[in-house]
Amino acid sequence: MKLQVYADRVSSPSRAVLLFCKLNGIDFEEKTIELSKGEHLSPEYAAINPMKQVPAIVVDDEFKLNESQAIIKFLVEAFPQVADHWYPKELFKRAQINSILAWYHTNLRRGTLNFVIHSTFAPVFGLPLDPEAAAEDEKVLSGSLAHIESFWLKGDGPFLLGSSQPSIADLGLACEIMELEVVDDGARERILSPHQKILKWIDATKNATQPYFDEFHALLPQVKQTLQNKI
Amino acid sequence: MKLQVYADRVSSPSRAVLLFCKLNGIDFEEKTIELSKGEHLSPEYAAINPMKQVPAIVVDDEFKLNESQAIIKFLVEAFPQVADHWYPKELFKRAQINSILAWYHTNLRRGTLNFVIHSTFAPVFGLPLDPEAAAEDEKVLSGSLAHIESFWLKGDGPFLLGSSQPSIADLGLACEIMELEVVDDGARERILSPHQKILKWIDATKNATQPYFDEFHALLPQVKQTLQNKI
Repeated sequence: MKLQVYADRVSSPSRAVLLFCKLNGIDFEEKTIELSKGEHLSPEYAAINPMKQVPAIVVDDEFKLNESQAIIKFLVEAFPQVADHWYPKELFKRAQINSILAWYHTNLRRGTLNFVIHSTFAPVFGLPLDPEAAAEDEKVLSGSLAHIESFWLKGDGPFLLGSSQPSIADLGLACEIMELEVVDDGARERILSPHQKILKWIDATKNATQPYFDEFHALLPQVKQTLQNKI
Repeated sequence: MKLQVYADRVSSPSRAVLLFCKLNGIDFEEKTIELSKGEHLSPEYAAINPMKQVPAIVVDDEFKLNESQAIIKFLVEAFPQVADHWYPKELFKRAQINSILAWYHTNLRRGTLNFVIHSTFAPVFGLPLDPEAAAEDEKVLSGSLAHIESFWLKGDGPFLLGSSQPSIADLGLACEIMELEVVDDGARERILSPHQKILKWIDATKNATQPYFDEFHALLPQVKQTLQNKI
């Protein structure tokens, strides 16, 4: 199966897909679509993903798919070498992972993405920062972190749902929280430090996915530096 | 398997789960959690779904699951009588359905839910209507309808992805759009009439899922009447 992954490593869902491929020995060609240059808005890219978002994949030059969760679930089924812990076949465990992934969109993703845009990223797209909106986003984000901590990190194992090995939910949510690497240190510290269990779980996810985790997140400190130089 | 479905028929995701059960001959007990009475906020319900949202299910008095998409995917696997067209096992078709369902959260759901709240429902929760926010929500909603029409309704069959029979994506998205039954006729007409393909597809979905579709949507005109009497 020939696989092309259209991605920008600055996007959390892109990183989750890239990491998943690397961790499972899935051969792919990485095609970078630079959001900051508006490459996702080009007619060429719209022909690959009409939603004009990253990531997207093209399989065998024919089948196109977007939305990171759909992509990763497709890869789980398409590549038999993927270990069961990523997306267990067991009915109840898989249901809980699906529940976390559905929850993610309107909670953790909404909070993090909007906070990062309103507090830090807006100028990249020619928009002003919006501290008032950022404060509202921070509430959604902090509430989401508290929820993860209280409900999905209360088991025995180091991963979500008390598992001993990471699942695609750990991967997706950890990549999302890592997005805070681009905001200023004070804000990041303020948001994350009340959640020590989250920090411990992120470390466990990092350790379980090295060296790729660091490889795919290496861009973020550079982006942060570039943004700070612009202010 | 003993199944309890905690739902309020005024909630689109609740209706999708209830309809899915009925259409597939899945035996369940419907437990009504009235959102307008704040029943979802009670400690008793929080013990069932800590997110304090509907729907949620309890299986065999033990396993609790929330998020409608996770619930429906669980039921697909748990009940062997569910016909394949609802969530095809075929890899590429299933991937496309997962992609639509992931897209739904931050596009169609966001637009519809926020529009309905800001234009109509806010007073139920003691909040003022917000025409400015509603206008923004309407843009998200109309853009989502246009996207469905251009990309997923361009095939030969009457259902999403050009299928000849409905899938769980048809069910989820149609139930969401039906939420517009509670807003005033002028607004509903303004939003839906530019999208004749959407109207035709909703009719196809209704017809394929009767008499249950009408049964589970019968509450909406009553809710609309109650809301209008309050204004």
